[in-house]
Amino acid sequence: MKIRNYIASLVGVIMVALLGIAHAAQDPLPSWNDGPARQAIIEFVKATTDTASPKFVPPEARIATFDQDGTTWVEKPMYTQVMYCLERVPALAKAKPELKNVEPFKTVLSGDRAAMAKFTMADLEKILAATLTGISVEQFNAEVKEWLAKTKDPRWKRPYTELVYQPMLEVMLLFRDNGYKTYIVTGGGQDFVRVYSEKVYGIPPEQVVGTAGATQFGYDKSGKPFLTKVPKLLLNDDKAGKPEGIHLMIGRRPVAAFGNSIGDKEMLEYTQAGDGARLMVLVHHDDAEREYAYGPKSKVGTFTDALMTEAKKNGWTVISMKNDWKRIFAFDK
Amino acid sequence: MKIRNYIASLVGVIMVALLGIAHAAQDPLPSWNDGPARQAIIEFVKATTDTASPKFVPPEARIATFDQDGTTWVEKPMYTQVMYCLERVPALAKAKPELKNVEPFKTVLSGDRAAMAKFTMADLEKILAATLTGISVEQFNAEVKEWLAKTKDPRWKRPYTELVYQPMLEVMLLFRDNGYKTYIVTGGGQDFVRVYSEKVYGIPPEQVVGTAGATQFGYDKSGKPFLTKVPKLLLNDDKAGKPEGIHLMIGRRPVAAFGNSIGDKEMLEYTQAGDGARLMVLVHHDDAEREYAYGPKSKVGTFTDALMTEAKKNGWTVISMKNDWKRIFAFDK
Repeated sequence: MKIRNYIASLVGVIMVALLGIAHAAQDPLPSWNDGPARQAIIEFVKATTDTASPKFVPPEARIATFDQDGTTWVEKPMYTQVMYCLERVPALAKAKPELKNVEPFKTVLSGDRAAMAKFTMADLEKILAATLTGISVEQFNAEVKEWLAKTKDPRWKRPYTELVYQPMLEVMLLFRDNGYKTYIVTGGGQDFVRVYSEKVYGIPPEQVVGTAGATQFGYDKSGKPFLTKVPKLLLNDDKAGKPEGIHLMIGRRPVAAFGNSIGDKEMLEYTQAGDGARLMVLVHHDDAEREYAYGPKSKVGTFTDALMTEAKKNGWTVISMKNDWKRIFAFDK
Repeated sequence: MKIRNYIASLVGVIMVALLGIAHAAQDPLPSWNDGPARQAIIEFVKATTDTASPKFVPPEARIATFDQDGTTWVEKPMYTQVMYCLERVPALAKAKPELKNVEPFKTVLSGDRAAMAKFTMADLEKILAATLTGISVEQFNAEVKEWLAKTKDPRWKRPYTELVYQPMLEVMLLFRDNGYKTYIVTGGGQDFVRVYSEKVYGIPPEQVVGTAGATQFGYDKSGKPFLTKVPKLLLNDDKAGKPEGIHLMIGRRPVAAFGNSIGDKEMLEYTQAGDGARLMVLVHHDDAEREYAYGPKSKVGTFTDALMTEAKKNGWTVISMKNDWKRIFAFDK
């Protein structure tokens, strides 16, 4: 093993040196304006990867978690996955005509957006259970993939997967370039996000933690085994469920966490409660012109006054989309 | 980005070439006798990493899963984790004296091994729930670590963490050296195995899938958040629970899977049902002299006649510990 270890170390040293040269020549966060948020992120990564720094974090402990809706992509006017479920209802009603006269499916089929906006949590749960379960894992993946390829957001007329925040993609890349494992930790469906996470975020399916339902193992008529998605909730990955989900799926406490709403508060608190260097960041939607501006009274992605107070008290970094980001999307000039 | 990408590719090419030279000089499976099992493993790794082979598997899909008890370490005379739980009972009874007169705790405290061997699943579940939950994640980790450091197996008089199969460690390393992500997929407790997986197997906690209970997020008196282990089962990672757990925790189908008992059958079937090259392997305990020999009637790690029939029918590789392994443990001559 000795020769091999020696060569591996040597190559490691060459690689670090060469990449260092290449890196120095470029700004790792080109879509960011200079300011306290940009500085906090760059300084954190620098300090935690510098062996001479008291803030150094060993490579195996470098875990950074990112909420998705409102943190890495647009969550307005409605969560993308809820949109997906609503748009699945017609196909579902074709297969099960009895649903046509049953609420909340009847309202969805009527196309009355104002009535849909008044759906209760119980209504939404019925729609989610009906559209996300009862099919095999492979069929679900294929349906989501097809829908994402053909569907466009009404405002930007682009696929939802293009409505990701370019500055956040740069942050993820900066962390990964410095030996961090990046995770999506979302209240959205784990299986849903896994369909596109690698392509959109460079994050493989096994690094997506989300709200997860159970599957059931069985055999088809030919004896081939397969997994069916069943309506049994295993993890509600929101609020307290985020640190619980992180423990279940990762088993380590993150050293950096990014969110944008009260659903991320517990994840940021849990991150901060660990020893050593920590980075907690919230994205604040204050850019009505280029994206959206929404505050305490928003139904989706709520950033309450209490959250802002806690952010200030705890020294969390708050990103102003308006001031900190040069551009929002990759397609912006 | 162009310069950087170019340099990164160049370094990649140099590294692969140099490591190739180093590799060629050594046997990747030195603790194995030549035979069909060794050949199947080596040929599978070679074919799936050779871009010119029809069996080539792209790097991101290279997932290999390993059962633990009986596959990577000794499971006799009792699962190590069950031993841990039994030995935790005296400390538990000290904290909760009312348990002293309640079964099955009373029998455990009596030290009567013959009576303990007759425990039902319900008895064991009571002991597991009492000894594995009601404490913080950190406290649990510290207790397991301390126990593993001080406890020795009665037969070999060595820590349990030394009773790992050296030939299987070599297989894990061979897979990782060829770009595979290796996972433990165990019926044992996920949190238990995560305490030592990095040190013993070189597998980080986030790549351990096991039987998992819920945790509950809360705050201590000073307002610091923490997670408590609670007696609510989220995943019973055995039999059909193994492919279900793999989907939940990894979200990809393995291309190679290693097991040793009927508890691993569904994992191997699920692995085999995917497209392209697949490797399914069972460890057969047929070496009473150097380890243990046990067959269809064993209470732990059962290798039934039906399993052997299925292995033959499906073309699964069966490892004979007696014939295929030159040595069992790292400390063997």
